[in-house]
Amino acid sequence: MTRIRFTAAYDGRPYLGWQSQPGGRTVQDVLERAFSGLFGTTCRIHGSGRTDAGVHALGQVFHADAPDTHRIPADKWPAALNTRLPRTIRITHAEYVPPGFHARFSATGKTYRYCISRAPILNPFDAGLAWHRPLAWSVDILEQAVHLFRGTHDFTAFAALRGNEPRPIPEGYFRRTITQTQVAQTGEHVFITFTGTGFLYKMVRLMTGAAHEAARGKITLEELARLINAPLPDDKSPFCAPPDGLTLMRVHYPEETFGDKKKIN
Amino acid sequence: MTRIRFTAAYDGRPYLGWQSQPGGRTVQDVLERAFSGLFGTTCRIHGSGRTDAGVHALGQVFHADAPDTHRIPADKWPAALNTRLPRTIRITHAEYVPPGFHARFSATGKTYRYCISRAPILNPFDAGLAWHRPLAWSVDILEQAVHLFRGTHDFTAFAALRGNEPRPIPEGYFRRTITQTQVAQTGEHVFITFTGTGFLYKMVRLMTGAAHEAARGKITLEELARLINAPLPDDKSPFCAPPDGLTLMRVHYPEETFGDKKKIN
Repeated sequence: MTRIRFTAAYDGRPYLGWQSQPGGRTVQDVLERAFSGLFGTTCRIHGSGRTDAGVHALGQVFHADAPDTHRIPADKWPAALNTRLPRTIRITHAEYVPPGFHARFSATGKTYRYCISRAPILNPFDAGLAWHRPLAWSVDILEQAVHLFRGTHDFTAFAALRGNEPRPIPEGYFRRTITQTQVAQTGEHVFITFTGTGFLYKMVRLMTGAAHEAARGKITLEELARLINAPLPDDKSPFCAPPDGLTLMRVHYPEETFGDKKKIN
Repeated sequence: MTRIRFTAAYDGRPYLGWQSQPGGRTVQDVLERAFSGLFGTTCRIHGSGRTDAGVHALGQVFHADAPDTHRIPADKWPAALNTRLPRTIRITHAEYVPPGFHARFSATGKTYRYCISRAPILNPFDAGLAWHRPLAWSVDILEQAVHLFRGTHDFTAFAALRGNEPRPIPEGYFRRTITQTQVAQTGEHVFITFTGTGFLYKMVRLMTGAAHEAARGKITLEELARLINAPLPDDKSPFCAPPDGLTLMRVHYPEETFGDKKKIN
């Protein structure tokens, strides 16, 4: 067996999220069926993490182990798989990696982008791809709010619980570091970009929702700063933005080991 | 009854085209159900023309007659209807017009845009929105080819037959005038824009297909020019581009009567 690291882009609208489910209508299920068809045997793939139903990706990463009978040049893998995939899922890159590589455990960070549309009437081509916020709000305050998330914080107020957390929840369980934030405006769209070492369940959507509540004047920047820097046990983000606008842009790995262009094997 | 002119945008992917069909899965059917629900009585709408299955619109125009019980300000019509429509169809503009206005017969021209993607791997968000032509071809020759269509020509070679044409086909039946053409490139996308006084069935897709055959060297510009300017009875465009990349951008009406901003009534 040889381990391969794949990069995938997908339109999340037709799928029930990344993670395999009994009904088989998830991105992982569709990818595993393509691999299994190609290999003639059941194949499991391992993603860098889940994306929720309706969330998109331009740079999701996963790994799979290919039988030695399928040792083709790395740059032939995308086409070999894309012919077996619906057009809403594309493999954009593949490279052979050492057996110690793991898409989830080797990752050092992720970049997400959230798209908000300010159009008076949502463009039908943005349906499911942008959060429609046509009423008055301030992009300037949104930007100030988003930058408050930078740094290492206890993100308790910006984490939804999956229900499988250890009890009592250990000290530092919700601590994460946001290394970069950016707000950019292009026509009717406002794009928020978050890069961090790790993200909690629904964290980007809860940060975006809270920042937008500040931008439309429902909470102050001071109140938001307290949620971020000194949360009380019951503090919660005032709003969770919908999945529509969210795209996983990139998963980061240590450059020295897995450069985008460098062939390991 | 009061006549209203509506402008609509739609993502054509989920629909079997504009024109009403028994199954009810067309844009016209969905719109008529929204009007009928609002009026409490069956309502027919009249489009500027058909768009085929999978073809999109940013500026389709149609008219409808509203009962006098529904005389609301023109700028309230889009929201009143959009709440009853799927997000892939949006009413973007409405205005009251004189009873003599007809979306089809009053139109003086249309503008269509065709989108080609040159990306090595088609972006999953472009699936159904662009024609994927990743192999080598010349945007420069495409542009020269597209401009050959300007002017008044017998477009016999660029018309698909619907089967309901008069026989024998009258002299001049396929004569049309293309008033403007444009080719623009943005990143991986090449956009071709055609404005004309009228378009035959599949004409934009047949022009685009032929221009692309020239751009990839399958026919010469001289051969294309002959198809346009001196077609023989059996001449046909060498290729019909798929519906995916096609968008009806605008329907033109005499400015003096129906300006976009001018309220008639």
